[in-house]
Amino acid sequence: MLLNSLHSPSQVKVEWLQVQPGIWKAIVGKPESISLLKAAQVKPYEKGFASLPVTSFPLNKNEMTVTQRDGKIYLRFPLQKEEKIFGFGLNFQTINQRGRILNLHVDHYGGTDNGRTHAPVPLYVSSDGYGVLIDAARYMTVYVGTAVRADSKHPSVLYDRNSDKDWSAQPYSDAVEILVPAQGLEMYVLAGPTPMNVVQRYNLMNGGGYLPPKWGLGFTERMPTLSSQTDIVNEAKLFEQHDFPLDVIGLEPGWQSMAYPCSFEWDKKRFPDPNGFIKALGALGVRANLWLNPYLSPKASLYPGMKQLSGSHTVWNGIVPDFTLAETRKLFKEHFLRYHLDLGVSGYKIDEIDGFDSWLWPDVATFPSGYSGEQMRQVYGLLLQRMTAGWFKERNQRTYGLIRASNAGASSFPYVIYDDYYSHRDFITALINSSFSGVLWTPEVRASETAEEWVRRMQTVCFSPMAMLNAWADGTKPWSFPEVEKAVKEVADLRMCLIPYIYSTFAQYRFEGKPPFRAMDLVAGFGFGSTNTEGKLDGTKNPYAMSIKEDIRDQYMMGDNILVAPMFTGEKSRRVYLPEGKWYDFYTGVFAGENEIINITPELDKIPLFVKDGGIIPMIAAKTRAPTPASKDQLVIRHYGKAPGNFTLYDDDGVSFDYEKGKCTFVTLDVIRNSSGDLTGNMTNPSPGKPFAYTKDVKWVFMTKDGNNK
Amino acid sequence: MLLNSLHSPSQVKVEWLQVQPGIWKAIVGKPESISLLKAAQVKPYEKGFASLPVTSFPLNKNEMTVTQRDGKIYLRFPLQKEEKIFGFGLNFQTINQRGRILNLHVDHYGGTDNGRTHAPVPLYVSSDGYGVLIDAARYMTVYVGTAVRADSKHPSVLYDRNSDKDWSAQPYSDAVEILVPAQGLEMYVLAGPTPMNVVQRYNLMNGGGYLPPKWGLGFTERMPTLSSQTDIVNEAKLFEQHDFPLDVIGLEPGWQSMAYPCSFEWDKKRFPDPNGFIKALGALGVRANLWLNPYLSPKASLYPGMKQLSGSHTVWNGIVPDFTLAETRKLFKEHFLRYHLDLGVSGYKIDEIDGFDSWLWPDVATFPSGYSGEQMRQVYGLLLQRMTAGWFKERNQRTYGLIRASNAGASSFPYVIYDDYYSHRDFITALINSSFSGVLWTPEVRASETAEEWVRRMQTVCFSPMAMLNAWADGTKPWSFPEVEKAVKEVADLRMCLIPYIYSTFAQYRFEGKPPFRAMDLVAGFGFGSTNTEGKLDGTKNPYAMSIKEDIRDQYMMGDNILVAPMFTGEKSRRVYLPEGKWYDFYTGVFAGENEIINITPELDKIPLFVKDGGIIPMIAAKTRAPTPASKDQLVIRHYGKAPGNFTLYDDDGVSFDYEKGKCTFVTLDVIRNSSGDLTGNMTNPSPGKPFAYTKDVKWVFMTKDGNNK
Repeated sequence: MLLNSLHSPSQVKVEWLQVQPGIWKAIVGKPESISLLKAAQVKPYEKGFASLPVTSFPLNKNEMTVTQRDGKIYLRFPLQKEEKIFGFGLNFQTINQRGRILNLHVDHYGGTDNGRTHAPVPLYVSSDGYGVLIDAARYMTVYVGTAVRADSKHPSVLYDRNSDKDWSAQPYSDAVEILVPAQGLEMYVLAGPTPMNVVQRYNLMNGGGYLPPKWGLGFTERMPTLSSQTDIVNEAKLFEQHDFPLDVIGLEPGWQSMAYPCSFEWDKKRFPDPNGFIKALGALGVRANLWLNPYLSPKASLYPGMKQLSGSHTVWNGIVPDFTLAETRKLFKEHFLRYHLDLGVSGYKIDEIDGFDSWLWPDVATFPSGYSGEQMRQVYGLLLQRMTAGWFKERNQRTYGLIRASNAGASSFPYVIYDDYYSHRDFITALINSSFSGVLWTPEVRASETAEEWVRRMQTVCFSPMAMLNAWADGTKPWSFPEVEKAVKEVADLRMCLIPYIYSTFAQYRFEGKPPFRAMDLVAGFGFGSTNTEGKLDGTKNPYAMSIKEDIRDQYMMGDNILVAPMFTGEKSRRVYLPEGKWYDFYTGVFAGENEIINITPELDKIPLFVKDGGIIPMIAAKTRAPTPASKDQLVIRHYGKAPGNFTLYDDDGVSFDYEKGKCTFVTLDVIRNSSGDLTGNMTNPSPGKPFAYTKDVKWVFMTKDGNNK
Repeated sequence: MLLNSLHSPSQVKVEWLQVQPGIWKAIVGKPESISLLKAAQVKPYEKGFASLPVTSFPLNKNEMTVTQRDGKIYLRFPLQKEEKIFGFGLNFQTINQRGRILNLHVDHYGGTDNGRTHAPVPLYVSSDGYGVLIDAARYMTVYVGTAVRADSKHPSVLYDRNSDKDWSAQPYSDAVEILVPAQGLEMYVLAGPTPMNVVQRYNLMNGGGYLPPKWGLGFTERMPTLSSQTDIVNEAKLFEQHDFPLDVIGLEPGWQSMAYPCSFEWDKKRFPDPNGFIKALGALGVRANLWLNPYLSPKASLYPGMKQLSGSHTVWNGIVPDFTLAETRKLFKEHFLRYHLDLGVSGYKIDEIDGFDSWLWPDVATFPSGYSGEQMRQVYGLLLQRMTAGWFKERNQRTYGLIRASNAGASSFPYVIYDDYYSHRDFITALINSSFSGVLWTPEVRASETAEEWVRRMQTVCFSPMAMLNAWADGTKPWSFPEVEKAVKEVADLRMCLIPYIYSTFAQYRFEGKPPFRAMDLVAGFGFGSTNTEGKLDGTKNPYAMSIKEDIRDQYMMGDNILVAPMFTGEKSRRVYLPEGKWYDFYTGVFAGENEIINITPELDKIPLFVKDGGIIPMIAAKTRAPTPASKDQLVIRHYGKAPGNFTLYDDDGVSFDYEKGKCTFVTLDVIRNSSGDLTGNMTNPSPGKPFAYTKDVKWVFMTKDGNNK
């Protein structure tokens, strides 16, 4: 009888070294020369850790094991019975990942939460307030409390399916198990004590979140692909005629002389004068963003130099640049600066670096750097973000763009993820999940079958990191559905009014690591779990009598104070789960509920929003362009509820990185109850000489009136 | 600039050695001690090759490359522009795999043809008449004409998506590329010259196809899971009262004292007298088949011995036996022979060895043999088939059972694959694809929403390797829908009438390697391709303007002569693609068409069947039990069309392996045109002393009458 010693392979001993406050790192084997964090190459924002609680190593080291065999690394982390596990990247249909198996693989999202997604970040955040990050540029498989070991010290209860109604297809598992097909890796344990603290530590170790330019928070429209420069300037004028916000116009493939594959050169017929075109747009206060995918046409001027610096396989007949090579980055930088950035291009939309397998380079591909197709797949989005972000950073110019692939380490990159998938409900789940993964996501609007769908989609995209209409294929306009034109303009205007609040919320992302758009599970006092429907045996539809677990995946927070509860087509009413404390209707200030589930029946023209007791929302009057360095707007500061409160209003020039040298303003907005029992507001004066886009004559609005409210 | 030598890794030179006529083998690296064929451990049926054409190596060796890097093996095989690629296992929605990427991984079929299926056999068969088989127990990724190399000698045409309407999301690729994450492997190239010859060589190298016992070709019903022995004997009697065929009754989990996890012991309450029960069933001419999954309950008598012989993880709290160990097989054999086979159990249904990941052992699992969870996953179905088949073989007793997981090397195993998926149309596609993979598949009937669906499903299951009603969860009966009771009985009776034809067809599988149920693409003279709908750009539904390719996946051959064109619920008419030569309606003998697409509007009570010109179909009168060694039935031999023809009628005792020692009969049925121009039939006499279940007074029926036909 052969009992191979590999059955109980000797465990690898690892040492956990504290590398940042509340973050420990361990090295297993010989880590590969490329990894997610190595590709992102970002320095931690160390100052941000100061305000986080001091903690100790949050896991029982005796219940963590590391094993190497079969050319792979096997990791095991303990899992308690009631723990929920969040994260593992940009999932679209589920929030709590417990009970799931994922193969983390950069790909276009294909309709199933199986690990293939635009940002399959190997980070998980426990409801018990700690996190684990695995840094390897490999397709790793994670078993999130599914695999049950024979020698488990926490065995699950034995039932007989024949006779016990408590038998379950998925017995209790006491571990998260991860298989990493690599010779070595680095891994991190992040302390809390709260899930939000874990996320903060993760974002801070990756440089702090990105602070977009203010214009990035305005409205973006992407043009039909074959639009000419005249078409585009006319479009900007058309938006003016409609008094509709517009800060950025996106140019789709047609700006290039060839795409796909891409030339990265202006098409001479559609764009006879790129320089004049961008100036004309600029004169209207609008910026140009350029679409590209990185697959280089044999007809491009960059091609001869890039031929030897590209992978073994082509994508749509374009060669695949190896961006791990400095020479590649040099050639791209020269070309892109000269022909785009120097002209005033504000940023990029970088497409199709995620998947699908059907056209991307295969895993059998090789690259001149020696990295495999698999490794390149996992980091390609990071490499492109890092390279392009660097160009703008060197010019002390903030950019804000779109990206189709990302991964761990991307918090500080100036990119928002988008995709071709188009389920409105799942788009919102992705927005929620982005907060566990250090990425931004936009539920972009493209087309709709009905006016109802149109306005509902417009409402949610205005409560996301990028308010965008992507008309590349359909040529839609914000006013495409006249029946809801007013409602669409109202929510776009509201977005513009909220820029002071949203910008301050992004400043939290930048300096504290708090994601701007947040899962409810990151909110203190949110005690609601997922709903569970008991499984019913059905020989054809449910042979294992699986119970159906449904996450609360249709509401989220924008910043500290605003709870967003979007409506979806066909819905006339919905449930809203209100966390602890009192909550008030954003529009009326009326009390809505407190630590309870409420049912609401909102009108079509409003997205339901709730503000927590004492919540302060700094706003400005609606305008069609985001504030510029020269702006001076009057603040209208709203307060909700009965409780005192305060809010840190952040400001800077909104366009450069001067804020990193201290050229920024933190102003405290305070509401207290004065001696006569009335609420009063106070703003500390901004330091002289520091950028502040608001006048000092602040208007305070106390939204919740006495008498008719709790 | 770093240009790592790994970018053009030196290719591995391989030697192709002819191991069987028209089969060449090459070894790459150091093959692992377990592989698919090593797990199956089957000897070739060498005699079968004699009738196949002599051929030379069918591929251009200069266009085949083998590379080793990153701990993996990269294989490349050439692909011509018009080639179709079939196989890669039991796919459910597609037949031609060209343009697809599959990760071959044993799993329950999940609704997408992505390589995860019950039998992800790494064999492909080209329409150009050759095949390739990769023998490694690993999850390999295949790029079937999708990956395009920068240095390809057959480059695809360059188009600009901006301006060329011929731009396609999937440009031409000149290779099948395969990534095998293993240190070594064995691979085979199989010659044709026809695709059928390739399949034959594959099945012959794996021992020849399985010849089921005759009773296996009768009707099977599986009982509600908690049925008692009395219930089951009563059920057999109920079938008798309905005069409905029944040869096998399947016992579901409730026969065991515990399941799941399993005890493999009879439940004393439901089965107080297993021996008497099986005898009582036997007296009615019915056999018992036992359900199991291999996950062993801690309460089972086998458990103490098996504890150390099982994997690191449990499935539903049952330990996972390591069947690569001789000691495991010994313990199982002792128990199973004593408590099941010795009592007269006819076979097994082996469940849940395929997936889902949610409850199967994870890839991080280890086994006492040292094999990984991945390797075990790929071979577990083979190991169980080999072990259980061996028990019966040693007793010179044929068995016929059900299995949920299989892989390469399984042709000679006595098992039919089934699953929980329930799309009728996809079930038929699986039946078609089974013919490219050396496996059998049953589109089992469980329940239906309408009488129409019920009869349509019953019709197709009667034209499959196992005619089965699986009532484990629903308690359905063949007569559950009274409106179609007659039609259901008619098709079940027809199945029984056709046993001489079906049995001879299985003999072709056994001795010539021809699959009994065949894709049209294996039929000479089938010139129809898949249909292609041009892609239309849609920003939300089809952003890459992908064209839609649809295979002809709803018709197949049963043996040489019968074309089956099933109807699906809701269909009132359908198209049938008739290969070259004349084809005749099975029921009437009337001419139907010739190398053309016909449109038919059949009644609900018949499954459309067509017979080719000169086709001979030996039948018997309907009976409720398949022929036994003692049977003497009168043959009714049908002839269709105008052409002469012949048919090899095979026979033996139908239950033992004595046929392997020559105790079998090959009789030629000949139809010639006599001197007066009439068709006449003739049967060569069977050799005296050889088993032959038919009387010598044969009835010839010429189905196609003169005058009213072409």
